[in-house]
Amino acid sequence: MPFYLCPMLKAGILGGGQLGRMLLQAAANYPVETHVLESDASCPAAHLCSCFTKGDIRNYDDVYQFGKALDVITIEIESVNLEALEALEQSGVTIIPKPSALRIIRDKVEQKKFYHQHQIPTSEFVITESQSDLEQHISFLPAVHKLGQGGYDGKGVQVLHEKEDIGQGFNEKSVLEKKISIKKEIAVSIAVDHDGKSVLYPPVDMVFDPKLNLLVYQICPARLPEKLLWRVEAIAHKVVKELKSPGLFAIELFIDENDQVLVNETAPRVHNSGHHTIEAAYSSQFDMLWRIMLSYPLGNPQLILPAAIVNLVGDEGFSGPAHYEGLEKVLSMDNVFVHIYGKAETRPGRKMGHVTIISKEEQDLLYKANLIRNSLFVRTK
Amino acid sequence: MPFYLCPMLKAGILGGGQLGRMLLQAAANYPVETHVLESDASCPAAHLCSCFTKGDIRNYDDVYQFGKALDVITIEIESVNLEALEALEQSGVTIIPKPSALRIIRDKVEQKKFYHQHQIPTSEFVITESQSDLEQHISFLPAVHKLGQGGYDGKGVQVLHEKEDIGQGFNEKSVLEKKISIKKEIAVSIAVDHDGKSVLYPPVDMVFDPKLNLLVYQICPARLPEKLLWRVEAIAHKVVKELKSPGLFAIELFIDENDQVLVNETAPRVHNSGHHTIEAAYSSQFDMLWRIMLSYPLGNPQLILPAAIVNLVGDEGFSGPAHYEGLEKVLSMDNVFVHIYGKAETRPGRKMGHVTIISKEEQDLLYKANLIRNSLFVRTK
Repeated sequence: MPFYLCPMLKAGILGGGQLGRMLLQAAANYPVETHVLESDASCPAAHLCSCFTKGDIRNYDDVYQFGKALDVITIEIESVNLEALEALEQSGVTIIPKPSALRIIRDKVEQKKFYHQHQIPTSEFVITESQSDLEQHISFLPAVHKLGQGGYDGKGVQVLHEKEDIGQGFNEKSVLEKKISIKKEIAVSIAVDHDGKSVLYPPVDMVFDPKLNLLVYQICPARLPEKLLWRVEAIAHKVVKELKSPGLFAIELFIDENDQVLVNETAPRVHNSGHHTIEAAYSSQFDMLWRIMLSYPLGNPQLILPAAIVNLVGDEGFSGPAHYEGLEKVLSMDNVFVHIYGKAETRPGRKMGHVTIISKEEQDLLYKANLIRNSLFVRTK
Repeated sequence: MPFYLCPMLKAGILGGGQLGRMLLQAAANYPVETHVLESDASCPAAHLCSCFTKGDIRNYDDVYQFGKALDVITIEIESVNLEALEALEQSGVTIIPKPSALRIIRDKVEQKKFYHQHQIPTSEFVITESQSDLEQHISFLPAVHKLGQGGYDGKGVQVLHEKEDIGQGFNEKSVLEKKISIKKEIAVSIAVDHDGKSVLYPPVDMVFDPKLNLLVYQICPARLPEKLLWRVEAIAHKVVKELKSPGLFAIELFIDENDQVLVNETAPRVHNSGHHTIEAAYSSQFDMLWRIMLSYPLGNPQLILPAAIVNLVGDEGFSGPAHYEGLEKVLSMDNVFVHIYGKAETRPGRKMGHVTIISKEEQDLLYKANLIRNSLFVRTK
């Protein structure tokens, strides 16, 4: 069958943060009319689309009105109005990922039940409906209590070490996950097309500071024994096979002290752990999602060169107009790519940008990642 | 001196075609407020800037009004209102390239005189004021007659083989350049910062079809003996040294049958011959220009991998809504990057996109360049 390109498909993104911004940078390689729905008209993606609509992505009418004239819609964040997306899907708009997959993933209780139901390895868990429920599970501690819905970027997650911590648990439907002894954290992105064909990006090693529990840097490909690599890949394929949806998915996994591979969480969208693919992969995660949205063939997820990412987050103690201390030094490094998201204001912990290093030498990646982490700070003047 | 980033510099681009589009894709890595002036509100760059202004880049008032509130301005095309840029420069707006450099380059007579004056090797020439002037230079033929001002994309250039062709010459100030026997055409981009420091991209081999005189593909690095490579580099440095302006410059050179290196033309802006740098260089020509505009350190022009470019131009005999025949096949290739400029209408010879191939194997570059050239066509349905 010959391939005919529809003249300028209309594609929408729910949310206008940095993921939308990078999606729109990639969109400009293709003939597509881009639309963004977001309540903040000065968000990072607002000025990079064909048409910006100010509105609430959690509001039924806003999402439905935004979507009804579009051909295809994707999301930048899970907390969107799912009922509107379901109605749009019914009326013929393509939603990527499918609302059915989004319904599973965006509720951490449902997500955990999904892994259990499909024999996808994950940590032990119990479901709690209220804080008093937690009393029944003292023997299950230490554990991580995760709010079913509404959590984001570390909010809605509480570590409960012992009985005395129970008061910090959530009083709504939540999942209590057995705390495991983590040896390594891995993230892997996988792209699925409309026929269910999937391609996997090389896994990413998420390196945390054990004291501060902060992501220090990410390195790709992950340094994993072949056997564990295969296990990670098999699990990623299994997750998307059972989700039954086209899209770009990022799966975060733990490797415990016994070399068990356990799924932590799945994100049904482009993800921070895949930002190195912009420069380091033949088809970036953003390019890949456009290929899926536009019904093009999947891209090549393989690496051009190994890569590391250092995230730029707002420094503690600084709130206000962002100032990038040390930027000149980092911009002078030879194999380094700076991405600043253009947010006017910084706040402690806010994602303000990222820096990618590509190199065939692991030592070069690690050296520069540490150097950048100690050179570049998002503060105020 | 510590480096302080100004909060969101305001940067303007005169012209909103594909060069503007790719500049704006790159701009989204930095904190910058982007402005575009262009008469066509549906141009490729219109929807990718912070603020679009509809206006004529050749009109004094349009350019002056557009520019007076900006910090820095660049151009996408040479045919802009130079007097307005000079007035803006006087009033403190940074213009890149400087109007003084633009004044030399945008008139082909002045440009040729500039090379001559600075002992920059270029083909022999005479200046003509009218068609009848040409009569005096019959013995100079075969030669290429180039209109001083107003030529673009092959317009304003006429090859005069013999006396009988003189009627095709221009009746305005023009330059008549001795036709040389071209062995190779080379393009080289060079970036100059505000202190006059410059970095050079690896030269590009422009491969033409000798019969059709059409650019078949470009390959970088150019396949040149070291001695000629040094000569090309020395000439490029000399050109920008004498132009005395920050900016990103693309210099097109001929290598004749006696291995003489001669400057053909200089473009004071990002250029088609540098599009492979988006994926193949550590700092693309677009990234590099932003670094200059924002007073950041120059980037690294070195190649990550060798590259080839195939230009996508509107096929002969097709005018109307663009349709990309063979796109699926090209999107399925492993190390290939498609850039479609999003122009709604195709016309014969119109620049509609380009495709970049990166590979460490020259054979792979050449094989895929030819395959793409014979697979992908911009036509109408």
